[in-house]
Amino acid sequence: MRLFDGGRVPNARRTRIFLAEKGISIPLVPVDLAAFEHRGAAFTAMNAMQRVPVLELDDGSYLSESIAICRYFEEVQPEPPLFGTGARERATIEMWNRRIELDFYLAIQAVFRHTHPGMAKSEGHQVPEWGEINRPRVMAMLAMMDRELADRPFVAGERLSVADITRQVAVDFLKPIRIAVPEDHAHLRRWHGEMSARPSALA
Amino acid sequence: MRLFDGGRVPNARRTRIFLAEKGISIPLVPVDLAAFEHRGAAFTAMNAMQRVPVLELDDGSYLSESIAICRYFEEVQPEPPLFGTGARERATIEMWNRRIELDFYLAIQAVFRHTHPGMAKSEGHQVPEWGEINRPRVMAMLAMMDRELADRPFVAGERLSVADITRQVAVDFLKPIRIAVPEDHAHLRRWHGEMSARPSALA
Repeated sequence: MRLFDGGRVPNARRTRIFLAEKGISIPLVPVDLAAFEHRGAAFTAMNAMQRVPVLELDDGSYLSESIAICRYFEEVQPEPPLFGTGARERATIEMWNRRIELDFYLAIQAVFRHTHPGMAKSEGHQVPEWGEINRPRVMAMLAMMDRELADRPFVAGERLSVADITRQVAVDFLKPIRIAVPEDHAHLRRWHGEMSARPSALA
Repeated sequence: MRLFDGGRVPNARRTRIFLAEKGISIPLVPVDLAAFEHRGAAFTAMNAMQRVPVLELDDGSYLSESIAICRYFEEVQPEPPLFGTGARERATIEMWNRRIELDFYLAIQAVFRHTHPGMAKSEGHQVPEWGEINRPRVMAMLAMMDRELADRPFVAGERLSVADITRQVAVDFLKPIRIAVPEDHAHLRRWHGEMSARPSALA
């Protein structure tokens, strides 16, 4: 088993942090995104969506989509549970992971892909107007997430979950679009400091 | 327990089809999206994201995000398994559900929200250029999904899963953006005909 990795891109990092929190170590195979290796024939044969990461299983088959790979490892090694236990907690973590991914991460990605000069070649057709209208959405989500953290330590409750990891890589992805978590978002800043101090943050 | 429903919008329908496939019946509470009831104070208190559907649990708490609600019911009633069983199948279904949602459903939604005159008020700021560049993405996904169906009956393998339901509501969502599944996509047309003929399609 080995993981075709993408270095610093958020979805690759999300998977590595997840594995680190599980205490699972598997060989990583670097994928050269700058050279568009992920759009070549060899990589496309592993994942038609041309995205990292990709997990190669021992039988030579492939799994892609970072959350699907994380869920695979959750099933083969349930402890510590990062997708929750029981109907209520599992659904709550799913809800938060989706909110953060669909409304926060994808908004950051839209700003990055459609307004950052370095993404012009990769994106092919940038729509700066689309990027810009996502900036206030990012700010609104930062405010909402700060309020939600007032009464609990982690995204979905009393313990760490995959939703925290999704938000961690998303918050760190604010840097290239030059947005900082506002000073008055004390809860979110506390949480981000704690996440950044975990050993898994270096994965 | 009751489900705050949104009528014909895809995520509300996805949840109802899922419940129908599970054989679960719960009271539905209509939400008047045309009157923007989902953006009012009462609804926002249930779901800060202002989206349907929302599940009210027996203790008065709320769950939102259609897939999170589906997962809740999967946990409380595992049969028939629509998120799969075992690590490999669960991860594969997750992979396909995400691919279809992120690359197909969201592309259709972008075309609809940013080019349909009826969405101008709801969206506030339409970016037609963003909508239009999603059209070829929709067509590319249709072709990819058709090829993938050549060797299996359902999205993720030999049996129905939540990924089929996600794709079903997405394909039906092609109508308002005036895209039809091309005639030569025989596998996808076969699959869509079968999905539409299931009793759950009327949910």
